[in-house]
Amino acid sequence: MTVPRLHLPERLAAGATLAVVGDRAHYLRHVLRLKEGDPVHAFNAGDGEWRAVIKGIGRHEMRLEIERLLRPAVPEPGPTLAFAPIRRNRLEWLVEKAVELGVARLVPVITQRTVVKPEKADRLAAIATEAAEQCERLTVPPIDPPRPLPAWLAARAPAVPLFLADERGEGAAIAEAWHRHPDAEILIGPEGGFAPEEVERLRAVPGVVPVTLGPRILRAETAALYALVGWQIARPALARISPPTSS
Amino acid sequence: MTVPRLHLPERLAAGATLAVVGDRAHYLRHVLRLKEGDPVHAFNAGDGEWRAVIKGIGRHEMRLEIERLLRPAVPEPGPTLAFAPIRRNRLEWLVEKAVELGVARLVPVITQRTVVKPEKADRLAAIATEAAEQCERLTVPPIDPPRPLPAWLAARAPAVPLFLADERGEGAAIAEAWHRHPDAEILIGPEGGFAPEEVERLRAVPGVVPVTLGPRILRAETAALYALVGWQIARPALARISPPTSS
Repeated sequence: MTVPRLHLPERLAAGATLAVVGDRAHYLRHVLRLKEGDPVHAFNAGDGEWRAVIKGIGRHEMRLEIERLLRPAVPEPGPTLAFAPIRRNRLEWLVEKAVELGVARLVPVITQRTVVKPEKADRLAAIATEAAEQCERLTVPPIDPPRPLPAWLAARAPAVPLFLADERGEGAAIAEAWHRHPDAEILIGPEGGFAPEEVERLRAVPGVVPVTLGPRILRAETAALYALVGWQIARPALARISPPTSS
Repeated sequence: MTVPRLHLPERLAAGATLAVVGDRAHYLRHVLRLKEGDPVHAFNAGDGEWRAVIKGIGRHEMRLEIERLLRPAVPEPGPTLAFAPIRRNRLEWLVEKAVELGVARLVPVITQRTVVKPEKADRLAAIATEAAEQCERLTVPPIDPPRPLPAWLAARAPAVPLFLADERGEGAAIAEAWHRHPDAEILIGPEGGFAPEEVERLRAVPGVVPVTLGPRILRAETAALYALVGWQIARPALARISPPTSS
């Protein structure tokens, strides 16, 4: 049975004892049903991945002892994905799949035709964390607080390439676009599309690169994942992760 | 407002009058709230896409009159995706996204580690139909009845290439694999993976091509979509659809 992975932000070092409390303790105890002596793989972006063992189970906490390093921290570079909030269930899928596919930062942007209230930050962060635990990442991509599209455009470095799905079908093929602009960010609009003045504004962004994501109009979450798979396909050297040593 | 698309298996020809009954009639009347005189785009794989108008609303039916051809039937070739059934919500997501990404046939196969009962055929077919309506396909991919993996392997043409995700990471890169084997089928295993004897059996299939789907182990539904995006990226000429004429 696979050893459960657990993202813990605390400092991980041999011999350290950590207490896991709250929802996470509940998850370990009542969902995963871990007992004293069971192993867990604790990880975070700064310290890497460590074998740990359950040392004690209290009423509202689980105590772990960190044993030994399994794999050191390595950077996990990836694209930033900016996206207009979509309906909750689709948004949760998007976050989970984007994490699986190596996204490095998630940026909710409010557009004119965004009809959905942004999801609670805690919930999205929990989904991102769980997805990272499941897919063996060391990093959990941060999720920015939502902000209006113009504010995000004003705040970002304008010369950084920005992939924008071109609904006229005239954009660059996505894999080719990634080859030419390996450091690009991705912007996915709402289900209703961008308003004409937004499109005009976006096309004027110095680094904007219209891209085509296949022959069909895709749902927002599908478009986001298409762009990320395109990145993985185009950039295998960057997307490679260090394999874990066996425990 | 976008004219709703409706997959109707009946013969579509100028002047024909069709009655839509049952769930579909309910959908048109109470969900889409169509009224007499409202347009609909009726389509199927054999007759293409036609502008139609609501002519009458009965208690349990909606009558449509077919007006004129918008675009003729064209083949929409695409891969066959064989997959072990997964949990319902993930499966429904897989079907929807696979249709968006151009899958031509869906084949549920029961493997040794399949823990989920196959979903009801009607429900999956409805999801595939709705996804095809939303993404402007003319074809709705058929969904085979589920059958055991050995039975499917025995029934399929053994020399047709079969992409199998190689968990050792030694497979061909997916885009390259599609270039070499444009007519390949895809096989995605259950969440628990294939049993050792199944892996052995699969590797002996003459047309099998181990492929790699990025650096991480992906969930089954993500792997399926990764393979399909790979196909779209590699084969733009095959994946292109005929654009609809405006109505």
